[in-house]
Amino acid sequence: MTLLSDGDFTRCPWLANANGSPFQVVSSRIRLARNLEGHPFSHWAGPRDLSAVAAAVREAVARCSMLSDCEIIPVDKLDEADRLFLAERQLISRELAAGGAERLVIVRRDQRLSLMVNEEDHLRIQCLSPGLALRETWREVNDLDDQLEHYLPYAFHPRWGYLTACPTNTGTGIRCSVMLHLPALVMIKKVNRLLSAVQKLGMTVRGTGGEGTEITGNLFQISNQQTLGVSEVQEVEQLEELVKRLIDWEEEALGQLQKEARSLIEDKIWRAYGILQHARTISSLESNELLSALRLGVRLGIVTNVSVEALNQVMICSGPGHLQKIAGTHLEPAQRDAMRAEFIRERIPLN
Amino acid sequence: MTLLSDGDFTRCPWLANANGSPFQVVSSRIRLARNLEGHPFSHWAGPRDLSAVAAAVREAVARCSMLSDCEIIPVDKLDEADRLFLAERQLISRELAAGGAERLVIVRRDQRLSLMVNEEDHLRIQCLSPGLALRETWREVNDLDDQLEHYLPYAFHPRWGYLTACPTNTGTGIRCSVMLHLPALVMIKKVNRLLSAVQKLGMTVRGTGGEGTEITGNLFQISNQQTLGVSEVQEVEQLEELVKRLIDWEEEALGQLQKEARSLIEDKIWRAYGILQHARTISSLESNELLSALRLGVRLGIVTNVSVEALNQVMICSGPGHLQKIAGTHLEPAQRDAMRAEFIRERIPLN
Repeated sequence: MTLLSDGDFTRCPWLANANGSPFQVVSSRIRLARNLEGHPFSHWAGPRDLSAVAAAVREAVARCSMLSDCEIIPVDKLDEADRLFLAERQLISRELAAGGAERLVIVRRDQRLSLMVNEEDHLRIQCLSPGLALRETWREVNDLDDQLEHYLPYAFHPRWGYLTACPTNTGTGIRCSVMLHLPALVMIKKVNRLLSAVQKLGMTVRGTGGEGTEITGNLFQISNQQTLGVSEVQEVEQLEELVKRLIDWEEEALGQLQKEARSLIEDKIWRAYGILQHARTISSLESNELLSALRLGVRLGIVTNVSVEALNQVMICSGPGHLQKIAGTHLEPAQRDAMRAEFIRERIPLN
Repeated sequence: MTLLSDGDFTRCPWLANANGSPFQVVSSRIRLARNLEGHPFSHWAGPRDLSAVAAAVREAVARCSMLSDCEIIPVDKLDEADRLFLAERQLISRELAAGGAERLVIVRRDQRLSLMVNEEDHLRIQCLSPGLALRETWREVNDLDDQLEHYLPYAFHPRWGYLTACPTNTGTGIRCSVMLHLPALVMIKKVNRLLSAVQKLGMTVRGTGGEGTEITGNLFQISNQQTLGVSEVQEVEQLEELVKRLIDWEEEALGQLQKEARSLIEDKIWRAYGILQHARTISSLESNELLSALRLGVRLGIVTNVSVEALNQVMICSGPGHLQKIAGTHLEPAQRDAMRAEFIRERIPLN
């Protein structure tokens, strides 16, 4: 079974089983930016350098025990649906998806660990986890980084740390992100409080699609942005602390809403449930909003026959890339909206 | 069992069993305006005249075989919920509902035949039928008029016919109305064609609540307005002909929609179904719009487990008056919206 030809396109493996994680956290992600000595950064690199970098990474991967069961996928061979599919699973960035020759994505079977080759940096090492699991994710990505470092000559400066194409990544080259579902803060219009707390700590808020994307479905991707003068563990701890504070605020907001607008919230949740179960055509944007309401319903114990796990999977696997992989063919936007509605109906049980 | 104390408030008897009627017609209604000789019209009448008129009508009713099983309800004894309830069943006009002493509404057990006493005219005789049944309705109301005429000295002028408070009713005093559901014409934006056809024939279009009310739920009440120089039977035939033409146009529009926007219509219908089954609070306006979509779904054979009869009943019996009668107490608007949602959920089956 390979990721793009005969995989299960209806279930994202790395997102499964976030047991015991706070309800508000969808996933954790850490990536490290690395470059190889002796080659210009990807944007300035000619075909020969790109090819040399790709070859060096392939060779290193072949020796890494942590990547003994992985797939190496050249991006330039992929069609539009494949690229969308990988981006929806957060396995490639939009930048890599747009790339051509010698761009690779290397994915371990469980899809938790992956590499992007010749993206903005020569190498991006990524670990994805369901729920709040920054420490575990850090350990995993750090171990892989250590293994790769044995075989790859990283560009490293004793004072500045890991050198990267964009100076904002230089130093540790780390970016830690957590995807949070914060519907109550949105409903009581306290998103500004959230944004200012995040900014004060030098962190950023993005949409589910990463940099430059909008917030949809009340899902906030909170990331660190400091890579100089702070250790990786400090970064992880700082982000974890912020996430816990945001969870507390969300719980507070939810308490307020339940006191002041219980029946309106229940109505919103049940309507979302009814529409998701019955619509015959639905946009990605609308389904994210409705899945968000349903998720809140599960949180509040109002909807009892749907699991958060199922909602997470539906959210990812109803993206345009996934739908086209499931259909096995190109779909026009109207066809996708119809198929999305059908896909969701099959997965949200009638109560 | 009486209409307002221990009746079945969840089912409007006169609206039941429109078997074999065209799908688009909800109901037919004919009323006759009559006044008694020797008394000023109600608006100019003092208490003594109003009282004399009421007494004369009571006496005549007591002798009418067609009204042997009826209830006489003094309007001034009614609370707000009772007045709304009767108006929602089309048994009293808003004008009579606002009235005081000596205003009566007299309703036969089956609620098809009723009289309003000391409304704008001394007497309004009304017959209501489910579906398209103008001829039958005319026979019924005409028979009752004939019986009453034996015992009541109608104000009649050999040249002008029946004299009425408002000159637009003088002559036959007849008003024939049909309630039509025309969602396809609305969707393809051909309502202007409908309006101009109706106006050319000297007829009028109103909302479900009668004069001065908005169109909601794509329900059009088409009425004649000519009472001079045309016989009652001609009026009935003219309206019937217009109704048939409008039904043809609606069918045409529906054919066009099915060709051009089948999937959008299906989506609209199923969403309406999902929301009606799940909402926890719903306004009268929204529920009428959603019930309209569901009705179209039944028409198209898309929704198969709901009957038009059930939809008709839900539409009438989810009005604020009905809900308060069912609850047996006064309800604030927010309570009504919550109860309406519950009432509808119980009556629209899950598929």
